[in-house]
Amino acid sequence: MQQPYLMYLGDVPDQLGAKTAKGIVDWRPEWCLGQLKLEGCKADLGIDNITIAEAAQKGAKTMVIGIVNSGGFLPKHWIADIIEAMKSGLDVASGLHIRLSSIPEVKEAAEKYGRSLFDVRHPTQDLPTGKGTPRSGKRLLAVGTDCSVGKMYTTLAIEKEMLKRGMKADFRATGQTGIFIAGSGISIDAVVADFISGAVEILSPENEEDHWDIIEGQGSLFHPSFAGVSMGLLHGAQADALVLCHEPTRTHMRGLPHQPLPGFKECMDMNLQAAQLTNKNAKFVGISINTSGLSIEEGDALLKKIEDEYGLPTVDAFRTGVAPIVDNL
Amino acid sequence: MQQPYLMYLGDVPDQLGAKTAKGIVDWRPEWCLGQLKLEGCKADLGIDNITIAEAAQKGAKTMVIGIVNSGGFLPKHWIADIIEAMKSGLDVASGLHIRLSSIPEVKEAAEKYGRSLFDVRHPTQDLPTGKGTPRSGKRLLAVGTDCSVGKMYTTLAIEKEMLKRGMKADFRATGQTGIFIAGSGISIDAVVADFISGAVEILSPENEEDHWDIIEGQGSLFHPSFAGVSMGLLHGAQADALVLCHEPTRTHMRGLPHQPLPGFKECMDMNLQAAQLTNKNAKFVGISINTSGLSIEEGDALLKKIEDEYGLPTVDAFRTGVAPIVDNL
Repeated sequence: MQQPYLMYLGDVPDQLGAKTAKGIVDWRPEWCLGQLKLEGCKADLGIDNITIAEAAQKGAKTMVIGIVNSGGFLPKHWIADIIEAMKSGLDVASGLHIRLSSIPEVKEAAEKYGRSLFDVRHPTQDLPTGKGTPRSGKRLLAVGTDCSVGKMYTTLAIEKEMLKRGMKADFRATGQTGIFIAGSGISIDAVVADFISGAVEILSPENEEDHWDIIEGQGSLFHPSFAGVSMGLLHGAQADALVLCHEPTRTHMRGLPHQPLPGFKECMDMNLQAAQLTNKNAKFVGISINTSGLSIEEGDALLKKIEDEYGLPTVDAFRTGVAPIVDNL
Repeated sequence: MQQPYLMYLGDVPDQLGAKTAKGIVDWRPEWCLGQLKLEGCKADLGIDNITIAEAAQKGAKTMVIGIVNSGGFLPKHWIADIIEAMKSGLDVASGLHIRLSSIPEVKEAAEKYGRSLFDVRHPTQDLPTGKGTPRSGKRLLAVGTDCSVGKMYTTLAIEKEMLKRGMKADFRATGQTGIFIAGSGISIDAVVADFISGAVEILSPENEEDHWDIIEGQGSLFHPSFAGVSMGLLHGAQADALVLCHEPTRTHMRGLPHQPLPGFKECMDMNLQAAQLTNKNAKFVGISINTSGLSIEEGDALLKKIEDEYGLPTVDAFRTGVAPIVDNL
């Protein structure tokens, strides 16, 4: 995908529906030229409202539909805008479940105007099976006690901190929001099961010895819906460094009220055992806690308690930053 | 898929290419009316050679292309036979990578003659994500130290032994050969990663309390290519009973010369930990060793040694039968 982006919000009914778009603006504000909202849109990214024509004139290369809606379909009344964007010289990228290319008018317009369509949820390249053959370069992977506990945020913050220090680092995206932020990546949970670890090997290939791939994790080994994805990620990543992510107000595994959360030790032990199958030197280098649901005092106390108990740098990636984790590499 | 089958071998160049077909004949001889070989075919199933017309006349319902070839394509000169079979009233089922319905002449003929096409490698139903909600009925799952160590053979033998004893049991197929043998199933390694455990929940749904689903395993938690599939299987199965399968002449993980095999204890511990996430009562009930690469004396000695060391009924499913494992349930 080429940058900069025009952010298309359509008429999503709430801010949550624009979560992907908001993540892109948070992490790549310099890529986001403006937002386009239809009447009734209840989300706002806090950036300029611009038209497709203005975006094209300002040099936008891709119109991003960074929207989550239930069902993942594309509202019919957005199609005219998508075609208009391509007519104006923009590619179109979508995070919806439905493929843009499965909509005949959209596909025809892409051919007519010579533009590209990107469906970031759907891996398009041919993938190999994983091999587990040791490869050069360093890799860090975020793992979680649960889904949605800050793995993307933590890995993006680590990449940013490393680049600030002049280290060689690349964030490697494994989910749709991350892919828009990185400009590339593979939506690992959409890969055919046989190719999970192979996809991660392709995503974070061999590199210079002092280069770090910072791999966004997905799911949790302890989530009964998605643990296969997490397991393949661990094996494919050949991570040297693992960071455990956690959200302390969670009372059960996301979406499964009957499913308790794992303990930290149990969670770290199992992740480490899996990681060491393909990299014997894998170890935990830090813990990242999303304390936004706690008061500052409670949050600070929790970080200190966990740091003392596990002897690892423990941060809130948003509030305290991830410098202590990078120091520990 | 409807039985009985006409087994189509085309002109495969060796017996290994007909491995799937051979498995079907071994386990469901009563379903296999005959085989159809083209000139140059080097495989043989040891059953009658018959024509499509004879098969139709004998009541065959499905022509099975139980062939493995490198690339998974369909040789062009087989297409006429496939169309002929449908014209004669048979459905056609294939274990090749290529979808029958992706071949225009074949698809047209299916519509023209009102026949069904089955591509057993490709799940067709919409799958849910796994939930891990406890469900009724009993389930047994085979797990392995590696891929291709006898999981299908062991589970089929356990189903057979249970049915012989008048127990309620169903073999649940998770791979292509198993699907032909069961007449239904889901090729788990071809499912999209997000739905691995959900597919297994659908495959082995709630049932009577004294009914056993005997679930064919896939891969190994210790195989860097396929462990995600094995992990999702463990979580989706909610197995009460696990059987460890092993092939004692294996010197490294299949296809990966650099990757050592896990020890039994390590392998059982990790499988048990994963299984207990969705069924706290999961336990190992037996060990199944494929001793075909050893002499009878060596094989017997090995079974005894393992049985003594781990305190679990240890069998060769082919040579000694699986009765001691069923006794232990």
